[in-house]
Amino acid sequence: MTRAQERDDIRLHVETALGDGASIEATPQQAHYLRNVMRLGEGDTVALFNGADGEWLASVVPDGRRGARLQILRQTRPQEADSDLWLLFAPVKRNAIDFIVQKATELGIAKLQPVLTENTDVTRVNLDRMHVTAIEAAEQSRRLTVPEVGAPLPLASLLDRWSADRRLMFCDEIRTGAPMASTFGVEPGTGPWAILIGPEGGFTEGERRRIADLDGVVPVHLGPRILRAETAAVAAIACWQAMCGDWR
Amino acid sequence: MTRAQERDDIRLHVETALGDGASIEATPQQAHYLRNVMRLGEGDTVALFNGADGEWLASVVPDGRRGARLQILRQTRPQEADSDLWLLFAPVKRNAIDFIVQKATELGIAKLQPVLTENTDVTRVNLDRMHVTAIEAAEQSRRLTVPEVGAPLPLASLLDRWSADRRLMFCDEIRTGAPMASTFGVEPGTGPWAILIGPEGGFTEGERRRIADLDGVVPVHLGPRILRAETAAVAAIACWQAMCGDWR
Repeated sequence: MTRAQERDDIRLHVETALGDGASIEATPQQAHYLRNVMRLGEGDTVALFNGADGEWLASVVPDGRRGARLQILRQTRPQEADSDLWLLFAPVKRNAIDFIVQKATELGIAKLQPVLTENTDVTRVNLDRMHVTAIEAAEQSRRLTVPEVGAPLPLASLLDRWSADRRLMFCDEIRTGAPMASTFGVEPGTGPWAILIGPEGGFTEGERRRIADLDGVVPVHLGPRILRAETAAVAAIACWQAMCGDWR
Repeated sequence: MTRAQERDDIRLHVETALGDGASIEATPQQAHYLRNVMRLGEGDTVALFNGADGEWLASVVPDGRRGARLQILRQTRPQEADSDLWLLFAPVKRNAIDFIVQKATELGIAKLQPVLTENTDVTRVNLDRMHVTAIEAAEQSRRLTVPEVGAPLPLASLLDRWSADRRLMFCDEIRTGAPMASTFGVEPGTGPWAILIGPEGGFTEGERRRIADLDGVVPVHLGPRILRAETAAVAAIACWQAMCGDWR
């Protein structure tokens, strides 16, 4: 007989409401993970979150040969507001997208928005895969939310309907922008923001003009070296969180 | 017959001196890459760098059935000093090491130093593979240098012989450190620096005390979420470059 363990390092995202006394049916995948992969049994605990109700400790209750229920014990963390930061990125190769989704989730991005630009070669994006990758990264990074995954949009449509109250950090690879630290080090950005990272082939002149015309756009550069799109995304998010976001 | 193209987007790192009139024999791998992969022929140009003499434009001269020589045409960029920033990281899985080496090189790290800590599971590191990955990332990011790759060292030995003039940014996952922006936003770090990222299992209490006792150590935290080691490495380097390094 194994001794029950109270642990909160195994975290699961659930789609149902969390509260005192709730009992939740694990999905078949979650039940398999808890019982067969992590070898948890009756009375072992896990942490649950749903993006709205904070984090709750729950006790594993095996249900039949394969299933499991999760019996809520108590709340361990209240819900907290995330930074309202979106990442707009041109789709890249699958590995690089996995990477962007995983790292952006760890770094606290609220919404992942694929953007189709004139130099974007990849136009098909597996949104289900992005969503699953984001859930896994949220579970492992102790986030209380899962970032929203937007359906791919052409850059022009996105800019046409851009909300005036969301500022845009435009990471331009041709170094027309200002250094990040002189932009945000002096006066940190507040309110809703988005970061725009270009495709491997760069933006066209027309796109660059259209972006520059947007109200509230802030062009910045990411140093003297050429960064891959996924490196630029992670670097820009980290700098924003450090200077303007929840690392402060 | 193909028209010769003058291009500097294909970049090669070479081990020989670069200067007016030099003619350099491409390695068999480089000759294969230029002739068979990139389909370059007589008179096409590439950019060369060796970490010391800046960047030079060179003309491809096929040599026999498989070889190639590179005939220097002119210097295109002078050598520039890199940020004197080291990355000390506990070895992780192979994919994650590839990732750290590639991204750290793009972001301008001068030396990659694997560090063996008490909670480091991986102790064998393929230094040749790290070196090759660093060269490729330097070629693609338009760096003029390739970062040095240090042989793995136990953390204790590294700290025992630590040079007093190199400051250490200690990224502690238990959030004992200060926010990055309040540390570097006000007074950017200058001179030689190193960033220390811990293993997945964290530092032990003894290690943490030993690090805290080091002269010139600056503990910082990387926000409220748990970051994978490779995410933490990229995030910390980007923030340092933005606030103290060559992004300014």
